[in-house]
Amino acid sequence: MTTITSLQGELPDGLIPAFDAYETALKSNDQQALGEAFEPGAETLRADGGGLLVGHDAISAFRGRRSQAPQREIVQVHVRVIDADTAVIVSVNAPKAGGRGVVTQLWRRSAAGADAVGAPADTATDDGTGVWRIATAQVQAPTPVFDTRIWRVVGAPLIETTADPSSPPGPLAGETVAVKDLFAVAGVRIGAGVPAYLDEQVDSEFHSPAVQVLLDAGASVLGIAQTDEFAYSIAGRNSSYGTPPNAVVPGAISGGSSSGPASAVALGHASIGLGTDTGGSIRVPASYQGLWGLRTTHNAIRRTDLLPLAPTFDTVGWLTRDADLLARVASASFESVAARSSAVQREVNPSFVVDPRLSASVSPDVRDAFGSLVDALPAAGFGAPAEVALGDIAHLYELFRIVQAAEAWASHGDWITAHPGSLAPDVEARFLFGRSVDAAHETDARAELAAQGDHLDRVLDGRILLLPSASSSAPLLSSTPAEIGVVRSQTLGLTCIAGVGGYPAVSAPLMSVPGGPVGLCLVGLRRTDLALIGIAASLEVALRS
Amino acid sequence: MTTITSLQGELPDGLIPAFDAYETALKSNDQQALGEAFEPGAETLRADGGGLLVGHDAISAFRGRRSQAPQREIVQVHVRVIDADTAVIVSVNAPKAGGRGVVTQLWRRSAAGADAVGAPADTATDDGTGVWRIATAQVQAPTPVFDTRIWRVVGAPLIETTADPSSPPGPLAGETVAVKDLFAVAGVRIGAGVPAYLDEQVDSEFHSPAVQVLLDAGASVLGIAQTDEFAYSIAGRNSSYGTPPNAVVPGAISGGSSSGPASAVALGHASIGLGTDTGGSIRVPASYQGLWGLRTTHNAIRRTDLLPLAPTFDTVGWLTRDADLLARVASASFESVAARSSAVQREVNPSFVVDPRLSASVSPDVRDAFGSLVDALPAAGFGAPAEVALGDIAHLYELFRIVQAAEAWASHGDWITAHPGSLAPDVEARFLFGRSVDAAHETDARAELAAQGDHLDRVLDGRILLLPSASSSAPLLSSTPAEIGVVRSQTLGLTCIAGVGGYPAVSAPLMSVPGGPVGLCLVGLRRTDLALIGIAASLEVALRS
Repeated sequence: MTTITSLQGELPDGLIPAFDAYETALKSNDQQALGEAFEPGAETLRADGGGLLVGHDAISAFRGRRSQAPQREIVQVHVRVIDADTAVIVSVNAPKAGGRGVVTQLWRRSAAGADAVGAPADTATDDGTGVWRIATAQVQAPTPVFDTRIWRVVGAPLIETTADPSSPPGPLAGETVAVKDLFAVAGVRIGAGVPAYLDEQVDSEFHSPAVQVLLDAGASVLGIAQTDEFAYSIAGRNSSYGTPPNAVVPGAISGGSSSGPASAVALGHASIGLGTDTGGSIRVPASYQGLWGLRTTHNAIRRTDLLPLAPTFDTVGWLTRDADLLARVASASFESVAARSSAVQREVNPSFVVDPRLSASVSPDVRDAFGSLVDALPAAGFGAPAEVALGDIAHLYELFRIVQAAEAWASHGDWITAHPGSLAPDVEARFLFGRSVDAAHETDARAELAAQGDHLDRVLDGRILLLPSASSSAPLLSSTPAEIGVVRSQTLGLTCIAGVGGYPAVSAPLMSVPGGPVGLCLVGLRRTDLALIGIAASLEVALRS
Repeated sequence: MTTITSLQGELPDGLIPAFDAYETALKSNDQQALGEAFEPGAETLRADGGGLLVGHDAISAFRGRRSQAPQREIVQVHVRVIDADTAVIVSVNAPKAGGRGVVTQLWRRSAAGADAVGAPADTATDDGTGVWRIATAQVQAPTPVFDTRIWRVVGAPLIETTADPSSPPGPLAGETVAVKDLFAVAGVRIGAGVPAYLDEQVDSEFHSPAVQVLLDAGASVLGIAQTDEFAYSIAGRNSSYGTPPNAVVPGAISGGSSSGPASAVALGHASIGLGTDTGGSIRVPASYQGLWGLRTTHNAIRRTDLLPLAPTFDTVGWLTRDADLLARVASASFESVAARSSAVQREVNPSFVVDPRLSASVSPDVRDAFGSLVDALPAAGFGAPAEVALGDIAHLYELFRIVQAAEAWASHGDWITAHPGSLAPDVEARFLFGRSVDAAHETDARAELAAQGDHLDRVLDGRILLLPSASSSAPLLSSTPAEIGVVRSQTLGLTCIAGVGGYPAVSAPLMSVPGGPVGLCLVGLRRTDLALIGIAASLEVALRS
């Protein structure tokens, strides 16, 4: 039996045996015993570095995702007895893998069998007077060296700013950048979220212009952040590196494909996430993690030394925790390429439109939150949005999907053919669909997309389209592939509009549903990126006051 | 007042105001109020990623080291009321810097003023019925991207193994290395723990042989780990990067100068620490953090592409969590340089000697622990150590100190002269002492050291010297520079013996005192490195059975 390091109060019968039985169940990974050691019901709590899980179901789902608890030996046990049926135990453990862990548990004895889930287990000590169970637990494991779900390589910093230290500080002085693993960073390889691809690369000789401009403006590169495989997903679930943690919704996916930069910024590791957005890869993780994100106007930021997915839709984008920094990043980046006519920014009137048909394929809580936000606009000093009909969005998405897939196959098909089994099944399936698109089909889709883009221009007529950034809050990690697939289709039905039009799109963290934050998306005409950020920032101020 | 997210039981008066007052005190960094919010006494607990602090004093010392608690807003509060005077509160906070934190607190109401430390504070709610205070707290802050006190740059891995994947796995397959920031690693700069030095370096073109041999044997390099400035300290307190956490003694220094590799291995970040030992820089952090460490025979491992400190004493060394891996690392490294006569390993008889005079300058608890260990040897199947007289160790240390300092100045004096103010005061003072050593003085000291080395050879006569690896367990972070200075002198009086003789020395984690682990050091004749590890491993088995 465990040696007690310190004890306050009179030790109740059965408490330490229950504590010991729990540790034994951890060692043998006895999932049933572990589940029964926690109180049933919706108010049981378990916290660790991933956040607080509320309710026995959420805790069980977490445990189901984990193959085996880390092996550990108890080295200190401090017992604070409160009454004959209640105690707090703070224990220190020595994990086999090194370091020290700490656990605080609130143990409570229930009446015998009163609220047992299933039959009394061997590990729940029931001596006829009741069963000891954990009501709340907080678990501190040794901090890992770094989170390889978020990062591939990090430094302090990895790449120093190139700003002249004798000049006045640049607009991004002191900021740190998480660079999505698609951009060239001198001295580092591009990995694209695919280890077998990384293995064949050599160090980049130059920084991508999108990286260089941030370094010149005073920022440093903290590291290379993970991406969905070849950026061809909006979920963030990389089959080799794992899913970056959602910083604000424990147990939920990060969103992708700029998954690593998003989690890095949301967790405060870096202040700027440099990513890309082809079909939503900035806007979706921004929406899922409560961040600000900008998908830039197509071709407004050069994509030199940046691995392509589908060049007709590929754009550079950024993620930040506030609008001010997003504006500074965008300003600095656009200024450096101002010589290019496509980068000259335009003003826009804060005149909003909505398409009620877009709400058909979003979750009810997002529909309600979006409706409430739109309803609140007049009181906040904005005009009520006009209703428009963008057309058959399902058809638009289908055209987008065909051209994106065909281009994705053109970008990476040869490599994928030569490296079977290197990708997650869902990502591979999308590439293989791209292989199946024949030339005539692709040509037709392109022609129709161009016409649809012109149509969107006419409908928007210089106004700003408001819509949710994603069809739902972040799905749980426990979602099935089919559930993720449905969310993907519904969300791409929203996000493809900016892709088809080559439009800039800001995602602003202005909505919240029970499952977490949801972004409000502002889509404007080409080259209105900075104006959109400014309008979204004023919306934030107006709606929150 | 805080919104309660979930509540079990009837909310006692004053609990939430006390919770709120504590958060307010955190915001304003009101140290007195924060101190008074915790119960006084030796059994109050506070845990975070750095481990469990036991007692109000240890908690206050921690708080005193921290300039300001991170700013945070409470976003969830779950209250589990146990009785009118006791409750557990689990809260989720949103730090200003991103991510989410979780705190579990056991709150207890004491009789009014009964155990107050000093006058009742504004923040301790005393309405005449008692004062709510925190009895135990566990704090989870968002995990930082990585610990820059331990690491300068890390990857997953940073450098892949160079072992041929089509060959059978090497002896170090799957192991990961923390490389002290003195060794050349291709594509990375050497920083030596001094940012101003790092700034002027260029990427190394080649791996140091000591790195290459590990890569060839199947290990990968996880990253570049911190060191004391130019490795000229045994404390681990780098003035620019901070002190790496001691993985097993919360609130204590790491030991150095191989501080980053030691903490990295003790925390389980890496399995192998590659470091150097001039005057104890492997053995001291091994002792302080319960690790296995080997200082190799002088010149047995080539020091090519490795920044020198004092070449007469500089050696390569390794840190691991167990003896088996240390033996594998040493074997692989020695085999690769077997063509050099100096690397040929020799056998040694497990015949031990001790010098009772060495115990004069170690802490009483280490003296007792070492005495008990020595006394236990016969029962464990080893002979009782013979007593020897090594001579005037204080004089030996003085000779060592003079030559080390003169060589250190020769290694780095020009750079230090050109970069005033780049070093911690204690490190700088040691270099400046080296500058003051005149040539005649140095020549005399060298001659006498050579004679002393011959004398040590004769006294040891092929036997193994047992002594504590350090004079004490790890000093606390709150130690004064004077206290650190005393420990330094006392410890170097033990560690300099191997330096003077060019001997290998194993530190094995076989002693423990109330303040933490202490290493048992085995010093053998030159080229008995592997044999020493084997004997230390058999000692571990025998003494623990």
